[in-house]
Amino acid sequence: MNSIVILGAGNVAFHLTRALIENTLNVRQIFNRTLEKAREIGEANRISYTDKISEIEKADLYIIACADSGIEEFSHYIPFDDVLVVHTSGSSPMSVLKGDYRKGVLYPLQTFSKERTLRYDNIPFFLEAEDPNDLKRLNDLANRISNEVHQLDFAGRMQVHMTGVWANNFVNHLYYIAGDICEKNNLPFDVLLPLIQETANKVIEMSPKDAQTGPAKRGDQVIINRHLEALEDDSRLLQIYQILTDSIKRVYEK
Amino acid sequence: MNSIVILGAGNVAFHLTRALIENTLNVRQIFNRTLEKAREIGEANRISYTDKISEIEKADLYIIACADSGIEEFSHYIPFDDVLVVHTSGSSPMSVLKGDYRKGVLYPLQTFSKERTLRYDNIPFFLEAEDPNDLKRLNDLANRISNEVHQLDFAGRMQVHMTGVWANNFVNHLYYIAGDICEKNNLPFDVLLPLIQETANKVIEMSPKDAQTGPAKRGDQVIINRHLEALEDDSRLLQIYQILTDSIKRVYEK
Repeated sequence: MNSIVILGAGNVAFHLTRALIENTLNVRQIFNRTLEKAREIGEANRISYTDKISEIEKADLYIIACADSGIEEFSHYIPFDDVLVVHTSGSSPMSVLKGDYRKGVLYPLQTFSKERTLRYDNIPFFLEAEDPNDLKRLNDLANRISNEVHQLDFAGRMQVHMTGVWANNFVNHLYYIAGDICEKNNLPFDVLLPLIQETANKVIEMSPKDAQTGPAKRGDQVIINRHLEALEDDSRLLQIYQILTDSIKRVYEK
Repeated sequence: MNSIVILGAGNVAFHLTRALIENTLNVRQIFNRTLEKAREIGEANRISYTDKISEIEKADLYIIACADSGIEEFSHYIPFDDVLVVHTSGSSPMSVLKGDYRKGVLYPLQTFSKERTLRYDNIPFFLEAEDPNDLKRLNDLANRISNEVHQLDFAGRMQVHMTGVWANNFVNHLYYIAGDICEKNNLPFDVLLPLIQETANKVIEMSPKDAQTGPAKRGDQVIINRHLEALEDDSRLLQIYQILTDSIKRVYEK
């Protein structure tokens, strides 16, 4: 791709712009409806930025990196036909892009926050394109950034996105719940960090099935009942505890 | 403590023995009903081992490191009165120890697997003892191993143990579910590792509340519905997805 324009200035745009530029890809411009956020990414990466639709430059590739709910609107801003336009969403079909240009998807599986420095070379990318030549072009581009590039249709991509919900969104929420219990017992969240780190590190070497420990795996109903009793006053936690415990039991009863 | 005997040869015994010896504490013997497992830990740490109750040596401290369901039985094996006996369980009261000796608890918050090398200095220890002098002795011992030593009664310890269930047992089960979805889509579990690692690393620097991303946090019902639809055939996953999504929503609607 000779030239790239990024549309959107959220967390994905922030990291993707940096990853592309670090790998000497020609990101020419960043567009966002809030100028300040475009300026932040533009200045950090020494590329031009704009909040005016009329100023969006001609390029070979447009990457729409915004929330799912904004992709369709952004897709109307590109006034060129002989270009490739992709979005970066795991759970939106390619058809959400409305225009006469060529369409594709460039979906990275990772949780992006601006505060975090990330390694890009192991982030899995999942690609889709209408045109086989575009798929090849996207493949070349993604391989410049990462060693984990896969081709995947919408149904598969949505499944992969859902793994992100399980392994990140839901996991992080369990950290939140555990932290809340610590706080109520006057313990800092930090006492959980060695356990959280070890839990994540274990599955580098062991499968989650082998790494599982705890009362649910052992079927230790005495301990489970003590925990359920301790949660008596919180019907929401009680319900989550029960359903996850049952789900673990089912794996090890097999 | 001048001398220590370990009873039990599971994952906690394996790691605790090593941690004690690495910190030049005098572990004299390991007892286990299956000799082979006692021998494994005994030989690795160059200490004597036995499977005979009659051969359990006199020591200052006995650490019963076995599954909760075995603590009471093990507690009958110690035929001395003027000694301190502790168990290592988060969810069993001190009173499960049956004997005329002095009683206590030495509970480490971590997930232990023999295959893993662990850092011990940041593992939180939670202590309890009937006798204030014993509490001081346990505190001295735990501080030799770790920088995170707390005194905590049974009610508090059970809450802490429960945080381990949330932050480790349940989290690991979510990895399992995510891995299962990958497998069904012919992707190796390894594509999840960068996301899993980043999720765990994020909360070193940000609170889980700030680290949260995803459709539930954004309240993006379109994406949530797509995921629910994709899970239609699995009522168990559907139910877990729904309940965790609702729980996240509740945090961010506040």
